[in-house]
Amino acid sequence: MSRRPLQIAVIGSGARDPELAPVAEEVGRRLAEAGAVVVCGGLGGVMEAAARGAREVDGDVIGILPGVEPAEANSYCTHVVAAATGKARNLAVVASADAVIAIGGEWGTLSEIAHARAFGRAVVALGSWSVKPAAPMPDGEGIETASDAAEAIGAALALAAAAR
Amino acid sequence: MSRRPLQIAVIGSGARDPELAPVAEEVGRRLAEAGAVVVCGGLGGVMEAAARGAREVDGDVIGILPGVEPAEANSYCTHVVAAATGKARNLAVVASADAVIAIGGEWGTLSEIAHARAFGRAVVALGSWSVKPAAPMPDGEGIETASDAAEAIGAALALAAAAR
Amino acid sequence: MSRRPLQIAVIGSGARDPELAPVAEEVGRRLAEAGAVVVCGGLGGVMEAAARGAREVDGDVIGILPGVEPAEANSYCTHVVAAATGKARNLAVVASADAVIAIGGEWGTLSEIAHARAFGRAVVALGSWSVKPAAPMPDGEGIETASDAAEAIGAALALAAAAR
Amino acid sequence: MSRRPLQIAVIGSGARDPELAPVAEEVGRRLAEAGAVVVCGGLGGVMEAAARGAREVDGDVIGILPGVEPAEANSYCTHVVAAATGKARNLAVVASADAVIAIGGEWGTLSEIAHARAFGRAVVALGSWSVKPAAPMPDGEGIETASDAAEAIGAALALAAAAR
Repeated sequence: MSRRPLQIAVIGSGARDPELAPVAEEVGRRLAEAGAVVVCGGLGGVMEAAARGAREVDGDVIGILPGVEPAEANSYCTHVVAAATGKARNLAVVASADAVIAIGGEWGTLSEIAHARAFGRAVVALGSWSVKPAAPMPDGEGIETASDAAEAIGAALALAAAAR
Repeated sequence: MSRRPLQIAVIGSGARDPELAPVAEEVGRRLAEAGAVVVCGGLGGVMEAAARGAREVDGDVIGILPGVEPAEANSYCTHVVAAATGKARNLAVVASADAVIAIGGEWGTLSEIAHARAFGRAVVALGSWSVKPAAPMPDGEGIETASDAAEAIGAALALAAAAR
Repeated sequence: MSRRPLQIAVIGSGARDPELAPVAEEVGRRLAEAGAVVVCGGLGGVMEAAARGAREVDGDVIGILPGVEPAEANSYCTHVVAAATGKARNLAVVASADAVIAIGGEWGTLSEIAHARAFGRAVVALGSWSVKPAAPMPDGEGIETASDAAEAIGAALALAAAAR
Repeated sequence: MSRRPLQIAVIGSGARDPELAPVAEEVGRRLAEAGAVVVCGGLGGVMEAAARGAREVDGDVIGILPGVEPAEANSYCTHVVAAATGKARNLAVVASADAVIAIGGEWGTLSEIAHARAFGRAVVALGSWSVKPAAPMPDGEGIETASDAAEAIGAALALAAAAR
């Protein structure tokens, strides 16, 4: 088991959303308080709110951008990776995480949820997508859901720790 | 409008499935009969069945592989691209298509559905994933569903032609 | 050995160059005459000239674009892949080829030469980059050079056939 | 100008090399002493030696892996990104840096040098590739060379700071 801290991805829309921003900020702050590094897509909306939350308590934030210019990262990222592969950076965001928390989100967020599960990462959805395959999935192979930030973080940290 | 033929992606699991294989083969054959080029992930299962169907009527098949070895393509692909970016080839499969038909499928297929919609490509689901965002989506912004191969192809070709 | 035709990548600058365009066009035409499929980056300059050459004799051209819009391909591509990964499409161009011909070119072309050799593809340089590692390389592990289109094509086809 | 520390990529072969390892380690240590974050490909050889050097003085190290498993990172990386795109992670390594130091290296390293220059990042070569385009390049558009670790770091930090 690695001695590096857990890395938890927080994913969601890049658009500002006055309802989701405080949730994402709380998620970021609580993750940092628990000693986890926040991983996000480095841009605005949920990504920026989660990063801001982590910085309120001096946490580390890895922002993984789609483009080639680190300067495009929001100002709360402490470590910036310019993936340089467009939306293929979505794969990097979830592959770099021990577990993933999805807050709201659009098609890009759904792609991240799907890649996360394909890579075997646990996903906790907080007011986000629900999905159903044609053939029923065994218990524990789908997506977890949480009803508030505290529950999402508890689930994500437990699943992340179990997976290390 | 380009004079190139329509390119339609057929996506689904790489695992053999005796129920879905004949459906995928029919989809591939009918697409080729309609003059479309079949785009797929180049490997087995639904990808191979769709490619085989297209070849039965001498259609073209572009197989886009995750790895770096064109020789890994199934034998029905007429044009092979080794994307060399692992599962990021899923983005190439759908971005290269005028419309997408999803047959069954697992998490990787869901990632392709999501990337397709993020890129503005129409998706027709045939016994595949159903998805629901937290906030209701306007009509026509989700995924189309079809109940058989003929219906899926009719919908995909119409949506593809409208998008050119 | 696959029955698919050889696929040869032609790489070089996307900028128009009145000296290199006729060379690239000749290379494309001769490759198509020899029954090979031309693979290129799908855009302008050397890519477009090689594609145009192949089309003069009815050859197939796979254009692999960096972006997500197949409509950005030059009009000579018969099969278009939108890799959707920015400059990571450079890896796809060379991984998809049995051998590579480099004509002139800038840093992007050098990246393709390097990825091609890392993937074990032969590279024939025609008025292109020359490179030297710190430690001397064994014979046959570097880049071949040619002094005109005919010589480049002869070398590329021979090396490609030997590698299948 | 961002208040984030400079990020400097150290690139080179993943193979152990008893001559280059101490050089890479010195480069990593001096970069960290200067307050820079070391960015590397996260694996062995030069990447690991540079990371180890940075850790000797408690510096931060971002390791950007080709695969999907953060556990594959060498034990000196403090922040791990699993790019999940194979050798396309080479683009992320250099795009994430304010400047790049190349130590020795094989074809993969040459691809990183080329992508770095295509993205406008300064490259300082320390016993690494030398390259020459067909058409002569204006002064300052090529690759800088250094004869020892101290000179390489001085040049890289100055070029990085000038580019912010």
